[in-house]
Amino acid sequence: MKRLNVVDKGFLLAESREMPMHVAGVSLYTLPDGADESEFLRGLVANMRDADSLLPPFGDRLKTGRLGTAGPAFWEPDPALDMEYHVRHSALPKPGRYRELFTLVSRLHGTLLERSRPLWEMHLIEGLQNRQFAVYNKTHHAAVDGARSIHVARSMLSADPAHILEESPLSLNNWEKYKANLSLGKRPDYSASEMRAVTDVLKASLDSSANIFKAVKGFANAWTGRSGNLTLPHLNVPSTALNRPIDGARRFVAQSWPFARIKAVAAAFDGTFNDAVLAMCAGALRQYLQTHSELPKKSLKAMVPVSLRQAGDVDSGNAVAAISADLATSVADPAERFRQIQASVQAGKDYYSAMSPSEVELFSMIMQAPSMLLMPLGLISRLPPYNVAISNVPGIQQTMYWNGARMDGSYPLSIVTDGMAMNITLVTYDQNVDFGIIACRRSLPQVQRLIDYMEESLQALEDAAGLKAKPAKKRAPGKRKARAKAKPKTRKKATARR
Amino acid sequence: MKRLNVVDKGFLLAESREMPMHVAGVSLYTLPDGADESEFLRGLVANMRDADSLLPPFGDRLKTGRLGTAGPAFWEPDPALDMEYHVRHSALPKPGRYRELFTLVSRLHGTLLERSRPLWEMHLIEGLQNRQFAVYNKTHHAAVDGARSIHVARSMLSADPAHILEESPLSLNNWEKYKANLSLGKRPDYSASEMRAVTDVLKASLDSSANIFKAVKGFANAWTGRSGNLTLPHLNVPSTALNRPIDGARRFVAQSWPFARIKAVAAAFDGTFNDAVLAMCAGALRQYLQTHSELPKKSLKAMVPVSLRQAGDVDSGNAVAAISADLATSVADPAERFRQIQASVQAGKDYYSAMSPSEVELFSMIMQAPSMLLMPLGLISRLPPYNVAISNVPGIQQTMYWNGARMDGSYPLSIVTDGMAMNITLVTYDQNVDFGIIACRRSLPQVQRLIDYMEESLQALEDAAGLKAKPAKKRAPGKRKARAKAKPKTRKKATARR
Repeated sequence: MKRLNVVDKGFLLAESREMPMHVAGVSLYTLPDGADESEFLRGLVANMRDADSLLPPFGDRLKTGRLGTAGPAFWEPDPALDMEYHVRHSALPKPGRYRELFTLVSRLHGTLLERSRPLWEMHLIEGLQNRQFAVYNKTHHAAVDGARSIHVARSMLSADPAHILEESPLSLNNWEKYKANLSLGKRPDYSASEMRAVTDVLKASLDSSANIFKAVKGFANAWTGRSGNLTLPHLNVPSTALNRPIDGARRFVAQSWPFARIKAVAAAFDGTFNDAVLAMCAGALRQYLQTHSELPKKSLKAMVPVSLRQAGDVDSGNAVAAISADLATSVADPAERFRQIQASVQAGKDYYSAMSPSEVELFSMIMQAPSMLLMPLGLISRLPPYNVAISNVPGIQQTMYWNGARMDGSYPLSIVTDGMAMNITLVTYDQNVDFGIIACRRSLPQVQRLIDYMEESLQALEDAAGLKAKPAKKRAPGKRKARAKAKPKTRKKATARR
Repeated sequence: MKRLNVVDKGFLLAESREMPMHVAGVSLYTLPDGADESEFLRGLVANMRDADSLLPPFGDRLKTGRLGTAGPAFWEPDPALDMEYHVRHSALPKPGRYRELFTLVSRLHGTLLERSRPLWEMHLIEGLQNRQFAVYNKTHHAAVDGARSIHVARSMLSADPAHILEESPLSLNNWEKYKANLSLGKRPDYSASEMRAVTDVLKASLDSSANIFKAVKGFANAWTGRSGNLTLPHLNVPSTALNRPIDGARRFVAQSWPFARIKAVAAAFDGTFNDAVLAMCAGALRQYLQTHSELPKKSLKAMVPVSLRQAGDVDSGNAVAAISADLATSVADPAERFRQIQASVQAGKDYYSAMSPSEVELFSMIMQAPSMLLMPLGLISRLPPYNVAISNVPGIQQTMYWNGARMDGSYPLSIVTDGMAMNITLVTYDQNVDFGIIACRRSLPQVQRLIDYMEESLQALEDAAGLKAKPAKKRAPGKRKARAKAKPKTRKKATARR
């Protein structure tokens, strides 16, 4: 039995009915030509359920002792694994727009995973327009982090539309094949792209002599105002609608933008792709708060998770550290806002750059300590550690297929907490960047507007950079089929309001 | 603000992720001739959401103080009531059989209601075969008991297929109209039928001088073996698969039988309708346990709730007492089994007959005390108070319509707990008795077989009574439309396995 580490167990301890600690993704697919929707989906459901032994921890459930999750916790095989329970076939009411999909996904994301069973669910959803179907995947953060979720999702995909999986993508056999291909370098584009965020952050000096005391000294300097561009949790974080206590209901919206548009903005300002994403989100959040007449004087601070997974290591659990980025929402000029964000991110990276992965993990926990004290006291919304989380997960940069069904997009759904009622997570896929925004339904009832504001923010950055802005054409879902395959850069997907 | 009484609060305190404390019902309707399914359902959804002020507690949420649910709890209006959240439009995957419906309903019943909002959800479900649709209604037991749920569901129905509701059935206006009709005696058949179970139990002596000490004396006698036919919680209750600790996942099955068949058995044995229902369930449970090679030597004991609601009183909250009935499952002969069940039920009724409603409520709580002590110690499955709950809720004895859609059946879903992993609840409707069986998915993975065993048990009772048994024809859902309207007694509805 594998024992849970302290970080994974933290996700179990922190969980409540208002704050589920699972992560998820919703993917869109187009049926292969001529396939019958219902029959094809039943085939996929049967294939998903067909596994002798499952990739850990998909066949394992939690085992705790007398102390419950307060004591040691382990993964043990579920003695009565019920694949019919985990793999579910669902449907949308007519007319089957993205609106109906996002409504269903918002509900599914608001329910807790069953603790006495392996901590995952997979929903195959029929009834979308235009021969599309959707898959909603949900996994507990204690069992598997976002990056590993991506690996698992990827292991069922192929660049070859004719490829048919023989066994469940969750089977141990399939996983071993996937890992073998990965380490043999047969899919070099995967490992290159998937490690981009990591290599951005982790320098060659990762295992240097830098130690935790230096980091604590930096932390102390920040608290006493001698931190330069470095921002740290709880420091100068304004309180907004994003930072109230939450309830258990959610709103989810998703949208895709061409990777090239965001990358062009990054290049124009001599920043990273991630800097450009943060600047795009910052402009949108500024506009949202302005519209609701509550733009704070202090700038919003974003938690930006950085994966500490090393290249080639696809089997380890959670290995994530957090940077606190100043979103410069008090700055009206988009170019100046970009520069301030960039400086703040660089300071955050520098702070971690000299630490080893285990030091970063330890230090991340020390940094969370004030939150752990404030949360039970109900003070977290008065002293929020950050205003919002913005997370960039590297994905696959080519068109992929699941048993012949083309994947059209893949949108992440992360965790929101008391004091941090919104999470923006994005995945690069094919020629696009797929954004998923999850929010507390009560704190942010109009979160769907953020999608419009993000487009406006991106255009403002393009204008400021002197790029020829391509005004995004809002394509109705019914027109998706008509989009030009030859010009993927202007694709825009999953536009929906609810 | 209305304060919750101690029984209602008990349902909040007892609730956990494995043991949700909500009750529900799933109803089947046939679309009016010529109506478009999707359009008709969207119309119903819009009508449900259309209310200025809601019948309490549908617009109210829980308010607790520093002590949470351990301290005083009240109902307060939800300041941001979100009808879109509560009234949901869902769909079934193809082929849209009862099997797919029960799968969805099992899932919906396994999730917790959101504590920060009014404690109810309503799901309108499209995609059933044969122009049917379904409604799944879920209400927290702390907010409204089973009998009141029935009243609320009924207030949206009419015996007139041409009747169209002007406002939401949940609106205060609609409720006042419903109550006025009820008290003016305009629907005498409703109040007559709805009070049948109550008048079975509550005698004219209800407000007599009988007091709690007499009841406690009877309780003590039962524990010391001087109780005659009276059975009480925890006494001689065998431990079976029905009485293990449960998890949060559920299996739901439903089936209808003609009221006349069960009533004929009751008459032949000179018993009540409820006696016949218990005998029918007892035979089925005996066969289920025999098949699984675990029929205990001691007979199963059933909790049989009795409503204490008085005629004309539709506004009070929970008012339910429990009889412990000996199901005589150790007896092979159906006639002898019927007689033993009958004697045990009569003893239970006599025990309560001299008490006033408030005395019964107090005494019911005293009887629950051993359970409250055993539950936190994890001993409840070793000393279960009962083996199973069998609950008979009186319904409407004529065909009803919701905005022109004919209601074809209405199946209850109740609560299961540690130590009592199955609940059978039945409602009389039109010419039928609609049974809903809810069970813990892990403890009773084959609960769907009970439906067959109940039919066999009913036939055995008919044989023993010398009645000409009508072998039930299993009608495929696809043949529902072909059933003869002129012979409703042979109707059989909602046959489904999963």
